[in-house]
Amino acid sequence: MGLIVQKYGGSSVRDAERVMNVANRIVEAYDAGNNVVVAVSAQGDTTDDLIEKAKEINPNASKREMDMLLATGEQISISLLAMAIEKIGRPVISLTGWQAGFKTDSNYSNARISRVDTERLKSELDKRKIVIVAGFQGLNKYDDITTLGRGGSDTSAVALAATLGADICEIYTDVDGVYTADPRFVKSAKKLDDISYDEMLELASLGANVLHNRSVEMAKKYHVKLAVKSSLNKNEGTFVKGVNKVEKMLVRGVTRDNDVARISLCNVEDIPGKAFTVFALISKEDIGVDLILQSIGNNGRKDISFTVKESDLERVLEIIEEHKETIGAAEVKYTKDVSKVSIVGAGMVNNAGVATKMFEALYNAHINISMIATSEIKISVLVARKEAERAVNAIHDKFLLD
Amino acid sequence: MGLIVQKYGGSSVRDAERVMNVANRIVEAYDAGNNVVVAVSAQGDTTDDLIEKAKEINPNASKREMDMLLATGEQISISLLAMAIEKIGRPVISLTGWQAGFKTDSNYSNARISRVDTERLKSELDKRKIVIVAGFQGLNKYDDITTLGRGGSDTSAVALAATLGADICEIYTDVDGVYTADPRFVKSAKKLDDISYDEMLELASLGANVLHNRSVEMAKKYHVKLAVKSSLNKNEGTFVKGVNKVEKMLVRGVTRDNDVARISLCNVEDIPGKAFTVFALISKEDIGVDLILQSIGNNGRKDISFTVKESDLERVLEIIEEHKETIGAAEVKYTKDVSKVSIVGAGMVNNAGVATKMFEALYNAHINISMIATSEIKISVLVARKEAERAVNAIHDKFLLD
Repeated sequence: MGLIVQKYGGSSVRDAERVMNVANRIVEAYDAGNNVVVAVSAQGDTTDDLIEKAKEINPNASKREMDMLLATGEQISISLLAMAIEKIGRPVISLTGWQAGFKTDSNYSNARISRVDTERLKSELDKRKIVIVAGFQGLNKYDDITTLGRGGSDTSAVALAATLGADICEIYTDVDGVYTADPRFVKSAKKLDDISYDEMLELASLGANVLHNRSVEMAKKYHVKLAVKSSLNKNEGTFVKGVNKVEKMLVRGVTRDNDVARISLCNVEDIPGKAFTVFALISKEDIGVDLILQSIGNNGRKDISFTVKESDLERVLEIIEEHKETIGAAEVKYTKDVSKVSIVGAGMVNNAGVATKMFEALYNAHINISMIATSEIKISVLVARKEAERAVNAIHDKFLLD
Repeated sequence: MGLIVQKYGGSSVRDAERVMNVANRIVEAYDAGNNVVVAVSAQGDTTDDLIEKAKEINPNASKREMDMLLATGEQISISLLAMAIEKIGRPVISLTGWQAGFKTDSNYSNARISRVDTERLKSELDKRKIVIVAGFQGLNKYDDITTLGRGGSDTSAVALAATLGADICEIYTDVDGVYTADPRFVKSAKKLDDISYDEMLELASLGANVLHNRSVEMAKKYHVKLAVKSSLNKNEGTFVKGVNKVEKMLVRGVTRDNDVARISLCNVEDIPGKAFTVFALISKEDIGVDLILQSIGNNGRKDISFTVKESDLERVLEIIEEHKETIGAAEVKYTKDVSKVSIVGAGMVNNAGVATKMFEALYNAHINISMIATSEIKISVLVARKEAERAVNAIHDKFLLD
């Protein structure tokens, strides 16, 4: 008998029909002789609807009360899913985050799981019950409800798998695995059979939108084997695991991230530590800077360009304005009309030709590159947003078509 | 500095505007120098909507999972109300039933409060916070969420007032007090300034729909002074308290209850214990029998008529069918076209003329009485449902017009 942890996202349980569908899948795994623990997100648009309700009353509500409100979304889905399994006639129990033993820090709206007290979980599993756990939520040391922030239910599922020592953690979503590129606009995109944690981490942070980074980091740390599958079909899905034995493919995927804005500080004094000053001011506000480009100094002046998330743009411009004396830029330019296009693959680390091949693909497609960044397993370029999809297709065809 | 417990029902917080209105009222009491604890129900139709969602998936869901689902309704209102108070700028915290220390038995969907652990409540009040508590819910010994059943939020409020030793428990609703009759169809109905617990108990159980019986029972037991007020105006409301000093009025109120069905067992053998047999079978199923009428025996046979709640009718007919041999009735008749009309007043106990006056009022209005029951402080009669409103008006005018 194995132990399987499954996670179903909001779209997988968005209405009564989908809830019944998910219930049937869970029962299938249970009837095959496994113990099954399930983490569930809030139904469909529930979370957005609750946020709307709150904003109508107080757009600046405390995060503590927002968490109290949002946690109801998952509590609704777990009870409905448990009722669906009751209907099929299997023993089942739903547990909120706190009942399932999720302890977190007190960083409301973006809490980190500190531990999972598995006593209750284990006692329900010992009774051969299917256990349905509210994802995305936990309890802090003040006995107050916290939520885990974006992708929180994935993290809940991996935490359950890690602490219970599950054989596998199956993440059900509305795509049937991890693709070499977004199949919505790259016709030739192919599903990957498996991918390493590190590659998945890069893909997730680059906007692949399948698995949240925090969950992959945790899976890597605790050696939890992940499977990304569709809740709507029976396809094999993609395994995310420790060692990627089949290292044939240089590049594993091509991604596009539209949540980018570029800022340029023009004609800044070219003295050591200038860039550091700027980025120190920004990072003090907990805002991440991504790509950075510094022009070669000219007449004692230089340009510094960098990218941030689009949602952080306004705040960053404010910071620059507040410290304009210190920074001393002649002009500040910015644009949202950019996208980051990246290739990811553990195989590229020792292969200098990869970057050349990528630039060639873009050159042939007449797409201009405005910034470049490379790490051991990825290369990112900044292009005009309107050309991003074409860029992904061009690169994808160059590397992944065969 | 006093301690006030307030309770707001679902219609008082049904939308953002009403939530802000309630927040302002709470802040008013707080700014007057009081500590304020508030029990809140789920917004408007939330509970019904959740029940609908559940039925779509499983009409026979376990009560444990139903409670898990329904408890989200109050959790939504407490967080929204706390956000509204944050907006006004007063210190506030929302607490679920379990956070507020409500411990109950395990009778899911109709749990009884066993105690309220006030540690958390007191520590928040010590910080001069307004405390918003989810009504209607608690936690049983298995750490599972329970709900208190109909009128549960009133009971939550009274339990808070009793355990915290509040100076008063204000129940806000959409009517501005307890009336001598339902003002929706009795034009001459008048608001009572005060009423005793016992009178309120009779009025509540007779369908006055202002306060739930369990809350009044608890208020009586723990000497909690209640005030029933409207959340929509500043009228004085009605006090419910121990001793009713102004005993001038014989009759305090006239009520109508449409949740009644009458069953008649015709031509039953007239032997001792026959009625007992029937009612024992029914009470074993936890169904309450209300009015009972037994005809005088004739040729060794008699008729037994009694009333039950309309919703229990079907089940009672089943029980009678299952035991028809034992009961031995020649015929079973039943009808839902009846209403119970009652007068309540502590003053009537030593006044034999009251019943006569009531019957006279009905006789003058040409309304037929099919059953009669009396207790120390009430007299109930069963009339045809279509004549019930007219009956209430006739009796009300006879006793309470001056």
